[in-house]
Amino acid sequence: MSRFLHSMIRTTDPEASIRFYCEGLGLKLIRQKDYPDAKFSLYFIGEDENGPMVELTHNHDDRTYSNGDQFGHLAYQVKNIYDTCEHLQNMGIQILRPPRDGRMAFIKDPNGISIELLQEGEALELKAPWNDMENNGSW
Amino acid sequence: MSRFLHSMIRTTDPEASIRFYCEGLGLKLIRQKDYPDAKFSLYFIGEDENGPMVELTHNHDDRTYSNGDQFGHLAYQVKNIYDTCEHLQNMGIQILRPPRDGRMAFIKDPNGISIELLQEGEALELKAPWNDMENNGSW
Repeated sequence: MSRFLHSMIRTTDPEASIRFYCEGLGLKLIRQKDYPDAKFSLYFIGEDENGPMVELTHNHDDRTYSNGDQFGHLAYQVKNIYDTCEHLQNMGIQILRPPRDGRMAFIKDPNGISIELLQEGEALELKAPWNDMENNGSW
Repeated sequence: MSRFLHSMIRTTDPEASIRFYCEGLGLKLIRQKDYPDAKFSLYFIGEDENGPMVELTHNHDDRTYSNGDQFGHLAYQVKNIYDTCEHLQNMGIQILRPPRDGRMAFIKDPNGISIELLQEGEALELKAPWNDMENNGSW
């Protein structure tokens, strides 16, 4: 049996990515490893030392990356999807698929990685302004 | 605080993907949801009901997908990286980055998603034929 450790994603802006996952989603920067000679840094972000993480890889140059569609998204469960989406909006993060159904929302991280937010337990009661908010773009 | 649920990846061949993650990596098909009207199926694969999973999405048509490089890989910890790689090889899965160091290997899933295998605990002692095996392609 294998044990899942992390999803690795490449970031061109570690500061923005750390803000997104930590301040935005409430996760913690568990550890950082800098390899100045090889010119890259790794940032491991999760709930705690032993749980699943995102590994952010930052190459110290100006290369850019592309998002394919074979990989879809990372999904996180949240305590209150309306509060989470309001908090993210207040940080300037666009809610691409608003939680009209009180259950599911989609956003993107600063590198265009699609993130699904799912309400813990039963869907919440429908609530303005979310219940009739339009989609924005794709996710 | 958000809780990580799953990484979603799209598959064009669910049977091959399930074989890879279940028979290959020793994970379990936790649940399957079929949506015949919307023409897609979902397969959730992990260690158990409550842990992190891979969500395989299979659209019931012949569309294909592309792998970008913003998303990097999924990483799994294994009990014995040599035994795991030998098992995978016997299944016909190519070891792209052999565990020369007794610690790390890379393979790809049937849809070209890069998978990192990491030895639990300390690196194992170097061992033939792995210690001088060449890399194959990219990962």
